[in-house]
Amino acid sequence: MSILFENVMLCGAPPERKHFVAVSGAYITAVSDTRPAGDFDRVVSGDGCLLIPGLVNAHTHAAMTLFRGYGEDLPLSRWLEERIFPAEDRLTERAVFLGTQLSIAEMLAGGVTSFSDMYFFCDATARAVAESGIKANISRSVVSFDEGADYRQDARVCEGIALFREWNGAADGRILVDLSLHAEYTNCPAAVQYVAEAAARLGTRVQIHLSETEKEHREGIARRGVTPTGFFLQNHLFEVPVVAAHCVHLTDEDRAILAAHGVTAVHNPISNLKLGSGIMPLVKTMKAGVNVALGTDGAASNNRLDLLRELQTALLLAKGSTGAPDCITASDGLALATENGARAQGRGDCGRIAVGARADLALIDLRAPHNLPVVSPDAALAYSAAASDTVMTVVDGRILYENGECYTLDVEKLKAEFTELRSHYFD
Amino acid sequence: MSILFENVMLCGAPPERKHFVAVSGAYITAVSDTRPAGDFDRVVSGDGCLLIPGLVNAHTHAAMTLFRGYGEDLPLSRWLEERIFPAEDRLTERAVFLGTQLSIAEMLAGGVTSFSDMYFFCDATARAVAESGIKANISRSVVSFDEGADYRQDARVCEGIALFREWNGAADGRILVDLSLHAEYTNCPAAVQYVAEAAARLGTRVQIHLSETEKEHREGIARRGVTPTGFFLQNHLFEVPVVAAHCVHLTDEDRAILAAHGVTAVHNPISNLKLGSGIMPLVKTMKAGVNVALGTDGAASNNRLDLLRELQTALLLAKGSTGAPDCITASDGLALATENGARAQGRGDCGRIAVGARADLALIDLRAPHNLPVVSPDAALAYSAAASDTVMTVVDGRILYENGECYTLDVEKLKAEFTELRSHYFD
Repeated sequence: MSILFENVMLCGAPPERKHFVAVSGAYITAVSDTRPAGDFDRVVSGDGCLLIPGLVNAHTHAAMTLFRGYGEDLPLSRWLEERIFPAEDRLTERAVFLGTQLSIAEMLAGGVTSFSDMYFFCDATARAVAESGIKANISRSVVSFDEGADYRQDARVCEGIALFREWNGAADGRILVDLSLHAEYTNCPAAVQYVAEAAARLGTRVQIHLSETEKEHREGIARRGVTPTGFFLQNHLFEVPVVAAHCVHLTDEDRAILAAHGVTAVHNPISNLKLGSGIMPLVKTMKAGVNVALGTDGAASNNRLDLLRELQTALLLAKGSTGAPDCITASDGLALATENGARAQGRGDCGRIAVGARADLALIDLRAPHNLPVVSPDAALAYSAAASDTVMTVVDGRILYENGECYTLDVEKLKAEFTELRSHYFD
Repeated sequence: MSILFENVMLCGAPPERKHFVAVSGAYITAVSDTRPAGDFDRVVSGDGCLLIPGLVNAHTHAAMTLFRGYGEDLPLSRWLEERIFPAEDRLTERAVFLGTQLSIAEMLAGGVTSFSDMYFFCDATARAVAESGIKANISRSVVSFDEGADYRQDARVCEGIALFREWNGAADGRILVDLSLHAEYTNCPAAVQYVAEAAARLGTRVQIHLSETEKEHREGIARRGVTPTGFFLQNHLFEVPVVAAHCVHLTDEDRAILAAHGVTAVHNPISNLKLGSGIMPLVKTMKAGVNVALGTDGAASNNRLDLLRELQTALLLAKGSTGAPDCITASDGLALATENGARAQGRGDCGRIAVGARADLALIDLRAPHNLPVVSPDAALAYSAAASDTVMTVVDGRILYENGECYTLDVEKLKAEFTELRSHYFD
């Protein structure tokens, strides 16, 4: 299938300049100021619309839509111990499948074309991703405390590796499988070393949580004699590509280590605020040379999977917490939400609007009163546009969402099934 | 006209409990679990919907939609001196009228039923409000440096008083006129005293900016020997009802003064972040006994007029900046965005869903994937709902907005006129 987007605005260009973007199969084949030659199966009018690379949600637990609104406004330890952990203990394959589908419906409606996931029952996640047409880097969360264990036999580690063998590269490469270590405080050195070796052997990445809370960071130092970043470094994890979520409480030395090893830090500003974890120093992290991407974390601590809201919050917090409104610009924001996330996922051909890049795209209608006037498309995206302004979401050249309709998901049926399951979940 | 909302959710009640809310003329006449007797001109199905009191935007400069996206990412002083002040110098009656209409279109589409405004060319603001059906407390911003002047003759003060005489109580009371003093650093004691006396004489309120930036607060102390709050106290301003925007850098003593005098502090979290002004200590201000309302400030520093986003940001920031996720609850948020704002406006019969209250209402559809499951209506409103979920906005019992359509504004014509004017504004 071929698509021509005509007269669209692009970020980095003035709003009065109109562009043509052509897609053939899974790739972008032309970006120009004049109409490219040839016929197209579909011509999309871009009047008043901004075409952006699809947004990448670089850290989430998609199935946690199951727990959206469950245990609000509690202290972190009570939220986890009294609500989330017991609820997760009751997870089933079907619950994860429906929860993930619901999250995909939300993400597609908000211009998200790819997400990175760390959770359980990952076969269900993979099936939901395969059926929906979205992209995802899926990982099975590993928690391991037994230093003497033979991790070749560990059920969770084996599950992660089996997931890799079954699903990595599936659905025309839309699905990639990463390995995962939940965090420093939930893993022993032997497990970290084994997972790092396995990732190197398989040629994949590792997703982790890193210094999310001050307590975790401080207790890690007390436990290991080094920061959580130092602990992972000592145990050779950074010899493979790593995607580290949160990074709220890193030291300058930690940031230098992440930069030197090409580790991606995923900023989850809304979850960090909502759980009282603090504010990640975004500008400092970027200036240290770290690749920074954006994530929503799970819906239980957000409560949205809205990357645009995350982007806007990230920029606002950076300005507000430093007192410097010029410390980061609207244009910086786009890379955080697109290209940097694609890089974190090992998808170097995604996250850009350029000839030869994958056609992962979102079309944002800027004609509502709340976006006018459009002085700069970058600023409109960064400060006024809403997820609901998304009128089309395209993955690998396939239109998955358009004007309120999700073509690959029966959303009404899904909502009914999800609501039914959810209503009996705590019986 | 009479309206019956049937089977709606209400905040403070579980989502499975369905309510009936009846409206007759400008007032709510029934709130019950069973269908009230009688016929209604309009029956609105509330399946999956939450009915809330209309949101109150307690501090804005509505016409500043004219400058949305203009001068992004600059340091505050350059933004004001190189962009906003010169642009405001070129304001016209027509520009303010169209800019205000555009902001009203956005606010009605996001469930806002009333706003408080401080700006220039206030006749234009009043006309826009009168025609649109929304409510507003309008004030003419006063800047005065001449201690020896006779403020009975001051053009700006006289304009504010003339505005009061012409418009206060107009449009069936939808329009109220407040007086205004721009801020401590832009006014001399004689002007403050005169405006305070005038407000007392007229029986109205005064809108001010208060300790928005650290610099303003610190320099105010150097200039006056007391904080800006102390300065206004000394000059008798708090003897009339005052609505103070920002309040980011108050001392504990300042907060005690505001509480003792019934001054409303308007929290503008997004503008404060975007301009690098800091984070107002919301919980501390509430605990001091101050009436706290929410505002968006102008679109140039936000860039939205989205009270729901403001509410969500306020709660998230309170949790994130204190490290205590339980320091404020979803339910606290609703009062900030509704009842407290109505109180600040001197509209004691607004901001609540109760028999005898004014029928200022917003209907929020919670059936989209991004709001499911609805465990608590309060949490859905506070953490997942978006302005775009608003399906109906009612002011004084009159439906002004419904499913994308604004009944009192020709939005397409307005957008064309606004865009035309805006495109020549800087010629």
